[in-house]
Amino acid sequence: MNYKMIFYTVGKVVLIEACLLFLPLITALIYGEWWVAVSFAITMAIAFAVYGLSKFCFTPRDAIIFSKEGLIIVSLAWLIMSFIGCLPFVISGEISSFVDALFETVSGFTTTGASILTNIEGLSHGNLFWRSFTHWIGGMGILVFVMAVASKNNDRSIHILRAEIPGPTVDKLVPRARDTAKILYLIYIAMTAILIVMLLFGGMPLFDSILHACGTAGTGGFGTKNNSIAGYSPYSQWVIAIFMFLFGINFNLYYLVLLGKIKDVFKSGELWTYFFIVFGAIAIITGNILATCHSFGEAIRLSAFQVTSIISTTGFSTANFDTWPTLSKSILLILMLVGGCAGSTAGGFKVSRVVLLGKSLKREFKRVLHPRTASVIKDNGKRVDEATVNGVMSYLTVYVACLIAIFLIISFEPFGLETNLSAVVACFNNVGPGLAGVGPASNFSIYTDFSTVVLTFAMLLGRLEIYPILLTLLPSTWLRK
Amino acid sequence: MNYKMIFYTVGKVVLIEACLLFLPLITALIYGEWWVAVSFAITMAIAFAVYGLSKFCFTPRDAIIFSKEGLIIVSLAWLIMSFIGCLPFVISGEISSFVDALFETVSGFTTTGASILTNIEGLSHGNLFWRSFTHWIGGMGILVFVMAVASKNNDRSIHILRAEIPGPTVDKLVPRARDTAKILYLIYIAMTAILIVMLLFGGMPLFDSILHACGTAGTGGFGTKNNSIAGYSPYSQWVIAIFMFLFGINFNLYYLVLLGKIKDVFKSGELWTYFFIVFGAIAIITGNILATCHSFGEAIRLSAFQVTSIISTTGFSTANFDTWPTLSKSILLILMLVGGCAGSTAGGFKVSRVVLLGKSLKREFKRVLHPRTASVIKDNGKRVDEATVNGVMSYLTVYVACLIAIFLIISFEPFGLETNLSAVVACFNNVGPGLAGVGPASNFSIYTDFSTVVLTFAMLLGRLEIYPILLTLLPSTWLRK
Repeated sequence: MNYKMIFYTVGKVVLIEACLLFLPLITALIYGEWWVAVSFAITMAIAFAVYGLSKFCFTPRDAIIFSKEGLIIVSLAWLIMSFIGCLPFVISGEISSFVDALFETVSGFTTTGASILTNIEGLSHGNLFWRSFTHWIGGMGILVFVMAVASKNNDRSIHILRAEIPGPTVDKLVPRARDTAKILYLIYIAMTAILIVMLLFGGMPLFDSILHACGTAGTGGFGTKNNSIAGYSPYSQWVIAIFMFLFGINFNLYYLVLLGKIKDVFKSGELWTYFFIVFGAIAIITGNILATCHSFGEAIRLSAFQVTSIISTTGFSTANFDTWPTLSKSILLILMLVGGCAGSTAGGFKVSRVVLLGKSLKREFKRVLHPRTASVIKDNGKRVDEATVNGVMSYLTVYVACLIAIFLIISFEPFGLETNLSAVVACFNNVGPGLAGVGPASNFSIYTDFSTVVLTFAMLLGRLEIYPILLTLLPSTWLRK
Repeated sequence: MNYKMIFYTVGKVVLIEACLLFLPLITALIYGEWWVAVSFAITMAIAFAVYGLSKFCFTPRDAIIFSKEGLIIVSLAWLIMSFIGCLPFVISGEISSFVDALFETVSGFTTTGASILTNIEGLSHGNLFWRSFTHWIGGMGILVFVMAVASKNNDRSIHILRAEIPGPTVDKLVPRARDTAKILYLIYIAMTAILIVMLLFGGMPLFDSILHACGTAGTGGFGTKNNSIAGYSPYSQWVIAIFMFLFGINFNLYYLVLLGKIKDVFKSGELWTYFFIVFGAIAIITGNILATCHSFGEAIRLSAFQVTSIISTTGFSTANFDTWPTLSKSILLILMLVGGCAGSTAGGFKVSRVVLLGKSLKREFKRVLHPRTASVIKDNGKRVDEATVNGVMSYLTVYVACLIAIFLIISFEPFGLETNLSAVVACFNNVGPGLAGVGPASNFSIYTDFSTVVLTFAMLLGRLEIYPILLTLLPSTWLRK
């Protein structure tokens, strides 16, 4: 195990974080929030110190890493990044409890958007900015960022890309992992910029536009208002809904669009399934809530916003869907589990896995009928590796096991099954709001410190797709060669 | 496809059912319930007529069947057996709605024990007997019974055994499938008889003893009283709890006991896991409900009864666990999903599948850390076939898919997530009572006819472990060679 390389790379992540903290510091200064600015400065100083220490102690002899080191780097980086990232909230005193501040920060980086704050509007501009900016950083992955801007590593870094980007398989768009990371980040930045402009165009203030763009791009869900997006114009709501939908799509497809390979884009079975689920859910929910709305236009706007927000695991809301009929709530709960496309910033189980499982089931039906026949699974016209199929089925197993285990751990909380179950589903799939006690009109402050830590852990598990975190916790990962 | 053999075998099942209907007919006569006796006589006449027709029209030229025919025979047999079995309720007028009567009968045969009756004690003795007797028939499987007493088929009948007995693999205990069926039925009959004697010994009336023994042996849950087992003595409650636990164990292990191979019994990983889950759950729930009970003895009795009832998917109750704390309810909900051991009369996902999935996850962790290593999974000291491992993971996929689909279909019902979700879980896993609106103190009469049919379907899906029913519904199963 290349320990030095692990801590050296984690150190580099801290350096990047220190630099990124400069933006909220500036924001605090602009709004004259001096004490908040100082808290960011202190945090930056700590981050630089940690980086210096890591550079001093852990300069690696070689940069060779394997799958195992990739997993450990990713989970350690996310942990330390969250511990440092929560300091501004604590130092400024705006979130007094360290556990709560950590929850809020992990919720930010993992693009969950679940909050323990009861009054978001009471936060300073600096902290509000940092809170939404963590979504933007975490959406594409900070290690991908490190690779894009700072890495001179050899191509071993694909192990990091694979561990941090969600989905059953990771395509290198171009031969070098570093260039793939760059392309992904350029698309991400461009789409965020377009969204900011479009929101400004609709009359949303600059500060709000930037923050909501960060929250949308990362499919996070932290905003600036207690009632999320409900107070903004229908135009702004539609723009955000469409971009939530877009950020839930595999970024590789945007790269294909840039290359002019539009035909290849529409060969993606995942994309069609995503379309089908989104438009199907919007249609059913629109019909279901029509009677409670003033007009058909309002019903379809509320339905489209909530559906795109939930399936992309963003978690913005324009309606308290907890008061909707059971059918709508049930559909939203299932969408939370499904999540967006692989290779997007969205969380959840991922549409591509659902597609692969569907195909593997079809094959299993055939096998049960005719035990001696063998057939292969195809996706986008290409044969899918059996190892990938088995990997996805294993992922379903570990996914269900984690969901049940976390649900049981927090079930000593006296809030009823619906609250506890949806809290776990919403955190584990990085959605944000759940139902009942943790619905869009409520927040996660109801939970004890113990459960807050458990749910924080659930968010990290979900964002990094379970294996990195679980394996880092196994002693055998560290001990055995 | 050997159509004639399919309908011929289904006809034989109907013949057996006609003979079995003689017992409730006698019961009705003993209690002087003339009209009920007539309704059983009419049903018997119909069943004999159906059998005669099938024998007349479908005498097969050869008895050769394959996996596909085995699946179709099993699902058709269960369907027609349920349609005929619900006639006494309808003809006697004690369940006026045909849909409700079908639900009750399928609930009986699938050993679910979910009821649409609001007043069980209002039923005649004849119908009460038939209701519990369907549990006993369905517990071990009527086709297994057909094989044991009537079949002169060649060994192709293993396809039927495999489709009707729950679990990922079916061991033939002895070389001939027919003899395996006989051994299983003998163990089943002996254990039921011992239970009846033990209940009589505790002062339970003969009629109640027989019916509760049938409900326990089949892990069904239909009883004779509105408050289930709550009104009986602690002795009777403990006896039933222990037997629910015993009927949730793989019957192959009892055969090993009979052969004196006690050592082999304790090599079973499934058995130890089952022990661990049961005793763990009893311990946690006892602690959790202690404050609401009069004594520690009462707490452990209530806890043990409800845990063994739920994990064996019986569904008898001695307490309204819907009023228990969230932790206890959450554990019971998870136990509903797990279910008993493979090769028992219990429903659910089956402990053996949980064990196999656990082992395959352990291997997957290794694979993620060291992508190039390969290893095999062992169970009871023997190497597990990769096809079996993949089959279990596929089963998890189709199991989750069915659960979600059925939940979505009935979610237009306005009862809230907890009621709808637990109704689906309780029916699909053949448990019986769920939570909230379908808890032990309530029943399934709240649902519309449409949902009642959907839940009836769910019970059949669960009992036959999905594939037979789903594949019988696929047109391609019937059309293709």
